[in-house]
Amino acid sequence: MAQTPYEQLEQEFRRLHAFRGALSLLRWDAAVMMPRGSSDVRGEQLAALETEHHALLTTPKVARLLERAEAGAAQLDDWPRANLREMRRQRDHAIATPPSLIARLAKATARAEVFWVEARKANDFKVLAPHLEEVVHLVRDKAALLGQARGLPAYDALVDAFTPGISTADIDTIFKALARKLPGLISQAIEVQAARGPTPLPGKFTVARQRQLALEVLKAMGFPFDRGRLDESEHPFTEGVAGDIRVTTRFDTNDPFSGLLGAIHETGHAMYDLGMPPKWRDQPVGRDRGLALEESQSLLFEMNLCRSRSFVKYLKPLLEKYLQVSGDEWSEENLYRHLIRVKRSLIRMDADELTYPVHIMLRYELEKKILDGTLPVAELPEAWNANIEQRLSIRPTNDVDGCLQDIHWAVGHFGYFPSYALGAVIAGQLNEALRAERPTLDVEIAAGQFGGVMDWLRDNVHCVGARLPVQELIKQATGKPLTASAYLRYLESKYLEAP
Amino acid sequence: MAQTPYEQLEQEFRRLHAFRGALSLLRWDAAVMMPRGSSDVRGEQLAALETEHHALLTTPKVARLLERAEAGAAQLDDWPRANLREMRRQRDHAIATPPSLIARLAKATARAEVFWVEARKANDFKVLAPHLEEVVHLVRDKAALLGQARGLPAYDALVDAFTPGISTADIDTIFKALARKLPGLISQAIEVQAARGPTPLPGKFTVARQRQLALEVLKAMGFPFDRGRLDESEHPFTEGVAGDIRVTTRFDTNDPFSGLLGAIHETGHAMYDLGMPPKWRDQPVGRDRGLALEESQSLLFEMNLCRSRSFVKYLKPLLEKYLQVSGDEWSEENLYRHLIRVKRSLIRMDADELTYPVHIMLRYELEKKILDGTLPVAELPEAWNANIEQRLSIRPTNDVDGCLQDIHWAVGHFGYFPSYALGAVIAGQLNEALRAERPTLDVEIAAGQFGGVMDWLRDNVHCVGARLPVQELIKQATGKPLTASAYLRYLESKYLEAP
Repeated sequence: MAQTPYEQLEQEFRRLHAFRGALSLLRWDAAVMMPRGSSDVRGEQLAALETEHHALLTTPKVARLLERAEAGAAQLDDWPRANLREMRRQRDHAIATPPSLIARLAKATARAEVFWVEARKANDFKVLAPHLEEVVHLVRDKAALLGQARGLPAYDALVDAFTPGISTADIDTIFKALARKLPGLISQAIEVQAARGPTPLPGKFTVARQRQLALEVLKAMGFPFDRGRLDESEHPFTEGVAGDIRVTTRFDTNDPFSGLLGAIHETGHAMYDLGMPPKWRDQPVGRDRGLALEESQSLLFEMNLCRSRSFVKYLKPLLEKYLQVSGDEWSEENLYRHLIRVKRSLIRMDADELTYPVHIMLRYELEKKILDGTLPVAELPEAWNANIEQRLSIRPTNDVDGCLQDIHWAVGHFGYFPSYALGAVIAGQLNEALRAERPTLDVEIAAGQFGGVMDWLRDNVHCVGARLPVQELIKQATGKPLTASAYLRYLESKYLEAP
Repeated sequence: MAQTPYEQLEQEFRRLHAFRGALSLLRWDAAVMMPRGSSDVRGEQLAALETEHHALLTTPKVARLLERAEAGAAQLDDWPRANLREMRRQRDHAIATPPSLIARLAKATARAEVFWVEARKANDFKVLAPHLEEVVHLVRDKAALLGQARGLPAYDALVDAFTPGISTADIDTIFKALARKLPGLISQAIEVQAARGPTPLPGKFTVARQRQLALEVLKAMGFPFDRGRLDESEHPFTEGVAGDIRVTTRFDTNDPFSGLLGAIHETGHAMYDLGMPPKWRDQPVGRDRGLALEESQSLLFEMNLCRSRSFVKYLKPLLEKYLQVSGDEWSEENLYRHLIRVKRSLIRMDADELTYPVHIMLRYELEKKILDGTLPVAELPEAWNANIEQRLSIRPTNDVDGCLQDIHWAVGHFGYFPSYALGAVIAGQLNEALRAERPTLDVEIAAGQFGGVMDWLRDNVHCVGARLPVQELIKQATGKPLTASAYLRYLESKYLEAP
């Protein structure tokens, strides 16, 4: 029997999915395995594959099939219809930016990534600046074209590309609520904690031991090591596809938590990707519903569930076993105090749960200015330092602690940062709903049992894929529209807990 | 200025080169890093990229450009003209076999590979036979089509696909010379060695230590670790491209040599790929001149240069340093005896330098008969056993030690085996020319200095790329046409050396 136009589209997008998986592996390898000198070669490979992916997505054949399938969309079931809508979204996005721009962006970001590493070594933003300028220039062109195609302002178009359905107006509303509450909350939390600061955790913790510990926790979370890997990289990330998923973290021999929590964070992402309905995994509708939701899945584990008294109960014997530690400093109470320690600090990656959104609001403000040209790239270090000083009353004395700390802009990710804070807000709302439905949650976590949480997430979040808009998904999962309220309630009760 | 047809072709083939690099990385990862359960996903990615590579190579656009460029070929310089000839070769090869045949062959070989594993488990060729028969049937069709396209007999077309420019007549001449000399040489060598067999080398040698040793030797050979890696895999191989080259080996904790020599062998391949003229690296003419020449580069190092008294001088202190060994067994003389030990054995992969070509001649004789139908697949075990008994006076008592030992035929590789022995013959001829021009060679190698050898190879072999036919390349490099004489002289003087 002849295939329908919709069935032919499924076949085309299955091929595109294989291309995306290959591209993801090339990126994983570049960050984890590739020899330092080979970035030029990898840049050419990425550019060739991205160009071809783009070409396959934008052929007249796909356009014709989309039109014919859309004409018969009323006969399709929910999932295929939503899939068709996501196909259309991808294709319209792709057609908005010409292949030459995409190829140039791929090469420029591959180069800037290398110089970001070099600039950090030299502790000098000027090493990166010309390469970042080139990236900004190309991203600006891309944003303008995307905005035209989607009928959105340029920056909104970038945000929409990462988190479909979220506008700067949505972000402004949520960030305004955070900005109203957070400064006071941070001051109060610091005051509360001053009276009961944690005792330092002495010792050196080898990477090999921390890795063993992280592997056990990830196994408990259900990470499939027969179809996935944990490695180390400069910056933790998740790459791959549902059948071959790869998370990374970075271990610090002076800190028993950062590497573990990085791995837990990334596993939150991985489990989301793995929770999609298997039938739709190689189709556009079988993907995450954007970055903010992705981030909600990683933060729910890293922050809401694992920086908790119940997780500490589970973790303490593991620390004793793998890191071979003992003594009063390793009491549950002291470990918990370390995990919820609030401190105004310079580095986003090291920031605690409470000050973290402040780092994001800074980036949101600056990246909009860089893109609209009101902040020249060369002035970024000074603008950065002034902004964080105003927000947190601390100021970097060098670039590595300032605007060189994140790789995102170097690799062309503008409009990406807001999703981190939005993710925390969504995680706060999911956490409230999850706890209301699972009164035994703390007991489960204390026993290292994550199966119940995973089931709830799969049934309420993961299994939706990209079938619903993000706000509707949140409303179905939590019974309420997306606001900052649950998140702020959660922060207050956690950080202003009576001693 | 508008691009000429030839310049447009260069651009198309640059893209194809990037695809090949990406495919190579996907294969490397599958063998070295990929989680065991992910082979289905990787299979889809490889198929998608290979299909696209084939599609890009066979577009009407490329055909038109080739015709237009060929019409103006007289105006092109040597290198572009040779490049155009190689482009034509690649395209004609790709177009000769219809996608339906390729797809059927892919399925049949995937199935035969599974049953090859099963047949080995059951130690029964009959488990594989019907599936191998199907593969043979399809390879026969492919060979006929390739032969038509290239104006060659069917089996010659398969050989030509692996080692361009070599015919069965060439192979027959060389193999006849080997068959005349080798049996006597093997008997004499075994007799000579009987009087002075090596003393066993006691101990366990950890992978970590062997790896350190291999890294030092590879550095001495000039392997560029800033643009390459050494890893471990089930079977040693080389993947990647000149800017990101990756070799693997397999270390055996009971054997201090096999892992090192595997790494040296693969580094011979890698240095060949790295020695191509940089300007042509992303073009068809900037590639190796086929499998036999590739194999000559790996064998020259593994056999001619490193299984030598001078290499042992260099190696002994490294063994003492990295493997922390000492004692009489580790004398230069005893190490050398281990490296040149001759023994008639049933398994090609375990064969020594002197008996190895015999295993190849057996396969060459049988695979021609299988393809032209004079040897029915069902009769292969008996034919195999009779053939090796006649050649080496030993007879397998089961199929695993006989015709089930190699995977090549099951996965459709006919015409591939001869290149192993041709590579040894070419290495012998290069070795003789190299020694004539560099009287200090043994002193250099004893000092771990490989720079002179590499310079000679780059100037005489590598830098030619695929610009000349293989015979002409050998003649330019050595001053003589390709024959087995130098190789046989080398074997005689090495293995019949007076005690």
